[in-house]
Amino acid sequence: MRNIRMVISYVGTTYHGFQTQPIGNTVQDVLTKAIYVLTGEKVHIIASGRTDAGVHARGQVINFQCASRIPIDRWALALNARLPDDIAVLKADEVPLDFHASYNARQKTYRYTIDTNKFADVFERNYRFHYPMPLRLPEMREALSALIGTHDFTSFASLRSTKVSHVRTISDAKLMDSEGKLELFITGDGFLYNMVRIIMGTLLWVGEGKLDASDFKRILEAKDRSLAGPTAMSHGLTLWEVVYDN
Amino acid sequence: MRNIRMVISYVGTTYHGFQTQPIGNTVQDVLTKAIYVLTGEKVHIIASGRTDAGVHARGQVINFQCASRIPIDRWALALNARLPDDIAVLKADEVPLDFHASYNARQKTYRYTIDTNKFADVFERNYRFHYPMPLRLPEMREALSALIGTHDFTSFASLRSTKVSHVRTISDAKLMDSEGKLELFITGDGFLYNMVRIIMGTLLWVGEGKLDASDFKRILEAKDRSLAGPTAMSHGLTLWEVVYDN
Repeated sequence: MRNIRMVISYVGTTYHGFQTQPIGNTVQDVLTKAIYVLTGEKVHIIASGRTDAGVHARGQVINFQCASRIPIDRWALALNARLPDDIAVLKADEVPLDFHASYNARQKTYRYTIDTNKFADVFERNYRFHYPMPLRLPEMREALSALIGTHDFTSFASLRSTKVSHVRTISDAKLMDSEGKLELFITGDGFLYNMVRIIMGTLLWVGEGKLDASDFKRILEAKDRSLAGPTAMSHGLTLWEVVYDN
Repeated sequence: MRNIRMVISYVGTTYHGFQTQPIGNTVQDVLTKAIYVLTGEKVHIIASGRTDAGVHARGQVINFQCASRIPIDRWALALNARLPDDIAVLKADEVPLDFHASYNARQKTYRYTIDTNKFADVFERNYRFHYPMPLRLPEMREALSALIGTHDFTSFASLRSTKVSHVRTISDAKLMDSEGKLELFITGDGFLYNMVRIIMGTLLWVGEGKLDASDFKRILEAKDRSLAGPTAMSHGLTLWEVVYDN
């Protein structure tokens, strides 16, 4: 057996998230089928993490074991020919048999994008949450600084989180602005269910003046989901990059 | 009567071009209907120029006469509420009754975008022509410089062009590159049918080494469509901006 790792990119708009589920039409289903068409093998795909319905990925990482002897430099092209236009394999390499795309992920970066202009950019409407409100960016940036470091992120986790520990370490969180288009990049060793979207929803309250940066910090410390803002729309979120030691 | 001018943006992917035609489903049809729903008037829309099926617009300009007394600053929001997500009104103003979006256009800029990376960026697949070939950018830029000035562009016009004169003045043509993503911006006082797409198709031949920059110049001077390259795919083209004197 071989263990194949791939970096993949997908537009989440039309899929029911990454992970296979009874309702069907997931990114995992489509990938599994394409690999089956290529190799005749029904492989089990492991991802760095699932993404929800509507969420996109620029650099999702997956791995799977298979017996196929197709040379590693042929995989990306061969699979792309068998995948729909909204899913693409960017890179493939062979990794040790014990490599696991989720357990071995050392760091992940997510991007959340917002369009604050009065009228949404039609070319980005599936990628950018349209939120046409004046936002206080300095206060939002001050609030974000509270996230840096190791904290219990219970306030920013879905109540449906099944993780035993809600402690995660955030190493970077920055908010960029270009003509009313905002990009939040947030990097950490791991993220809880809906964490980036709840952080964004709460940050928008700070931007609008419903909360101050000090309230944001207080909410984080309270470990209480009910104090935080809403879960921001899924289509503004992209799994940007996953980093491994090797 | 009033004469209303609007700047509109649309994703051309699902439309049969701008201009109304028997097959239906054009941008003009959708706009005309939205204006009818808003005002009860069947207006005649004039555009700065038609765009073909699949071609996009960032800043198309239209005008139409109507009797409606809706204040001018309400039009964009009111129409956007009645338009699909892939068409948006960015701006509306009132202009003299003799203003004509096509006759009065002084300058237009088109953008043609290409993705030369091995695997297409899934997020831009409807906007960027995927052409995964190494291209000679310096030669392409040299070829482009031949376009600047006033020339007869018959070589770069569709044989279906119905214009009496094929003489146009190009004031700027630049090709930018960012990590294998190319953007051609071309500005002129007017463009012939398929002109930017045929220029791009010929320029790709220069990029690949099938032609040299001097051949490109020779083709322009020959005034013979059969010497030029193919008409590049419509989805890479965007009507970027239209400039008026007022």
